[in-house]
Amino acid sequence: MEHEVIRLDDAVAILERTPASLRALLDGLPEPWVRATEGDGTWSPYDVIGHLIHGERTDWIPRARHILAGETRAFESFDRTAQFIESRGKSVGVLLATFADLRRKNVAALVEMKLTDEDLRRRGLHPELGDVTLGQLLATWVVHDLDHIAQVARTMAKVYATATGPWSAYLSILRDRQR
Amino acid sequence: MEHEVIRLDDAVAILERTPASLRALLDGLPEPWVRATEGDGTWSPYDVIGHLIHGERTDWIPRARHILAGETRAFESFDRTAQFIESRGKSVGVLLATFADLRRKNVAALVEMKLTDEDLRRRGLHPELGDVTLGQLLATWVVHDLDHIAQVARTMAKVYATATGPWSAYLSILRDRQR
Repeated sequence: MEHEVIRLDDAVAILERTPASLRALLDGLPEPWVRATEGDGTWSPYDVIGHLIHGERTDWIPRARHILAGETRAFESFDRTAQFIESRGKSVGVLLATFADLRRKNVAALVEMKLTDEDLRRRGLHPELGDVTLGQLLATWVVHDLDHIAQVARTMAKVYATATGPWSAYLSILRDRQR
Repeated sequence: MEHEVIRLDDAVAILERTPASLRALLDGLPEPWVRATEGDGTWSPYDVIGHLIHGERTDWIPRARHILAGETRAFESFDRTAQFIESRGKSVGVLLATFADLRRKNVAALVEMKLTDEDLRRRGLHPELGDVTLGQLLATWVVHDLDHIAQVARTMAKVYATATGPWSAYLSILRDRQR
C-alpha cells in the first residue's frame, strides 16, 4: 500500500532505526564483506556508511531548514562522492558510531521542528528536480536509508554468487543490478 | 570479489548477525511498514520472518546433516508458503524472538560440526537442482538471509514511492522488481 504523503511518526520510526540496522549488519564483520563491491564504480558497505554520514551533515536537515526559512534559492548540490575523501583511514566501527551520533541529533532536530501537515506541503527548489515539498524531502530521506540498506545486503550477497552453485537459480538478488 | 568457495568463519559471521539485523529493522515498527508488500503475491516483512523460521526448522541444518550422513535420497522439498499458516496470530516480536532462538541453536550446531574443507565438498541430491555440495548449501544459507534482508528494505521503501515526488527519479530501489 503506497502512501501519497508521509506520517511523521512513521518516517521517524525508520530514520531512528537505521544506525542500529547498519550496526547489526556490519559491525565486527570480516573485511571481505565490508569492502566488497558489485564491480567497478559501485560502492562497498564501507563507502555507503560514509555517504550516509555526509548526508546527515549536508543534506536532509539543512535542506529542511532551508525550506522552513522560506529560501527561494535552490538547495546546495549534494556531493555523492565526498565519502571517498572523508572516510579515509577511519574504521567501520568509527564510521558507524559517527553516523549513529549524527542521526540521533538530526532525528531530535526533526522532532523539535513539530512539523504540521501544512509545513509538510511547504516548497523548496531542488537544483535539478525543481519544485519539491518538505514532505517529499522527508519521504526521500526514509527511502534513501532503505535503498542503501538493501544495497549493503545485495552487495554482500554477491560475494557468494558463485559459491552457491546451482542454487543461484533461486536467489534472485544475485541478478538485481547486474552489470 | 566473488568467492568460489566459502570460508566457514565468514559464513557464520553473517548467519549469526541476521536475527539482530531483522530485529533492528523491524521490532516495534508501525504496522504499515511491517505488513507492506510489493503487490499481489509478494511477501511482507512479516511473511519473510515466518519464512526464515521455517527454513531454520526444516531446511539448512537438516540438509547439512542429510549430506553428512551420506544419504543418497534427495532432500525433502522445502515448503515456501508454510509461514502463511505457521505465523498466524503471532506478533512480529514473537516471530523475531523465535527466529533468533532457532538461529542461535543452528549456528551452534553448524560450528559443532567442525567442518573441514573436505566436508564442504561432500555431495547431496537436491530434488530439483540435482548434485550440490555442502559448501554450496552453506553459501546459499548466507545469500538467502541477505536476499530477504534486501527484500524487507525494498518492500518498505516502496511504501513511500509516491510520497518522494520528483526524487523518485534518483531512488533506484523503487524500480527494482517492478511488476
